[in-house]
Amino acid sequence: MKSINVFAPATVANVACGFDIFGFAVDNPGDKITLTLREEPGVTITDIIGDDGRLPREAHRNTAGIAIQSYLQHIGRTDVGVDAVLYKQMPLGSGLGSSAASAVAGVFAINELLDRPLTTRQLIPFAMEGERIACGSAHADNVGPSLLGGFVVVRSYQPLDVIRIDTTANLFCTLVHPDIEVNTKDARFILKNEVSLKNTITQMGNVAGLIAGLMTPDYDLISRSLVDVIIEPVRAILIPEFNEAKQAALESGALGCSISGSGPSMFALSRDAETASRVGAAMQQAFLGVGITSEAYISEINRQGPRVI
Amino acid sequence: MKSINVFAPATVANVACGFDIFGFAVDNPGDKITLTLREEPGVTITDIIGDDGRLPREAHRNTAGIAIQSYLQHIGRTDVGVDAVLYKQMPLGSGLGSSAASAVAGVFAINELLDRPLTTRQLIPFAMEGERIACGSAHADNVGPSLLGGFVVVRSYQPLDVIRIDTTANLFCTLVHPDIEVNTKDARFILKNEVSLKNTITQMGNVAGLIAGLMTPDYDLISRSLVDVIIEPVRAILIPEFNEAKQAALESGALGCSISGSGPSMFALSRDAETASRVGAAMQQAFLGVGITSEAYISEINRQGPRVI
Repeated sequence: MKSINVFAPATVANVACGFDIFGFAVDNPGDKITLTLREEPGVTITDIIGDDGRLPREAHRNTAGIAIQSYLQHIGRTDVGVDAVLYKQMPLGSGLGSSAASAVAGVFAINELLDRPLTTRQLIPFAMEGERIACGSAHADNVGPSLLGGFVVVRSYQPLDVIRIDTTANLFCTLVHPDIEVNTKDARFILKNEVSLKNTITQMGNVAGLIAGLMTPDYDLISRSLVDVIIEPVRAILIPEFNEAKQAALESGALGCSISGSGPSMFALSRDAETASRVGAAMQQAFLGVGITSEAYISEINRQGPRVI
Repeated sequence: MKSINVFAPATVANVACGFDIFGFAVDNPGDKITLTLREEPGVTITDIIGDDGRLPREAHRNTAGIAIQSYLQHIGRTDVGVDAVLYKQMPLGSGLGSSAASAVAGVFAINELLDRPLTTRQLIPFAMEGERIACGSAHADNVGPSLLGGFVVVRSYQPLDVIRIDTTANLFCTLVHPDIEVNTKDARFILKNEVSLKNTITQMGNVAGLIAGLMTPDYDLISRSLVDVIIEPVRAILIPEFNEAKQAALESGALGCSISGSGPSMFALSRDAETASRVGAAMQQAFLGVGITSEAYISEINRQGPRVI
């Protein structure tokens, strides 16, 4: 039967100043999925490799499964049958957009198998359904960049307005995932519902600077704008050695460093691969100072989104 | 003696979503200044035309005078003597950046007369001194665009970081100044010190969309992003018929419409001069509906800042 293998990229949401509106995709890590068409209608997760048995195998409770199901329903092809094998290649609950990558891989793969009835952009709402069961809300700041590649703004949800930010900036991403657990719901629960007008103005200035810095491109402006006065000061307390790891990144030459998504992973952006590697080593060393081991990923920005492999 | 005439543009600060961080310059209206070097050191405002006697004539209390004085002090040329005649060509306290235009005209003119010891960008802090005595705070969101031309972001004040947003968008501005008084201090006093996190996120999305829309350029994105959920809903109550005038602008084809600076003037942006004129007429008509007369100005975006005339 017809079969396909797809890779979908991990993503960094928020990106310092852009809480809930901004994200970008990386080439490493990412999830893989194998889909095989079959005669019997329905979606079956036949296996998940690399999750230590933690993810649900029932299709309607699995982020990739639900994304494929809602896609097939939308295009009126519930006659289609598909077996899915999911290869989790990144830590779960790490702030790297793991659930989004699985959902994006699934929906991109089924759309390819059926000879693209929809454009890639049109797949966003179905991948968001995966986020709804994984996180409780159908947010798009991981799904958007994972599907479209590059840097993406989610300007609004009603109506959904996902904007790709064109940039010729040559940026390398360092991701460091410390081996600690942060519950996404805790990470959201500790945020205050109110922000001072002063901090709102500062953050808007940094958002404007970051978009302008990317589109120009102006690396100094990107660096000056990668500052979060609203979320990072609150969430940093959930990550031991956050300040030390961030300082180590900046002292090693990173343009900026903050929390990836709701953490506990941290990201840094640098101008070349060598700096990005040095930044990763320095951050890992900072965590090791208090006995916390970590994984580091060095990668270019992923510009194309998912790909058939 | 050596003499010079300079025009400096009026400006729209805030621009819907960009409270305190964003502004742009227009070609009409604007202020003019005539400076003449003289032998006796010091700065003298010899006359002000068009202010109905409302502005201070003492140089150290006049926005243009103080800007020139602080500039001469900074470059160590307190030996210079200059007579200034200021031509106010826009309503005072109207939200059109009247004080900024006078300060910018003054400091640009003296720098030209002395054969440009400083770059235009370096003049910003001295023009800001004019704002300090006019408004009580040395803000840069009018001074920045008036001096640099085009669209300008004030990302931060410490250190001062003023960014010009390059755009090839062809935009026309409608300014309507209703003949009512809004005190700038009142306009600031009624703002809340706290903003909901939800509105902060919405506003950040619109800031990102507006910058990306201008730089792409993408007129639909500019239009969708010209939305203010924080300041406009509060300040609109100070402007009778605000909602009607805004609706009239949008129905006449404007990309967006909001309060100019702290009001009471309103601005709209359109894609061509004909639409901008129609928008202006419709807004004036809305104000006339409740017996409020107004002045309307139709203009291209000013891209060069002040100019010698």
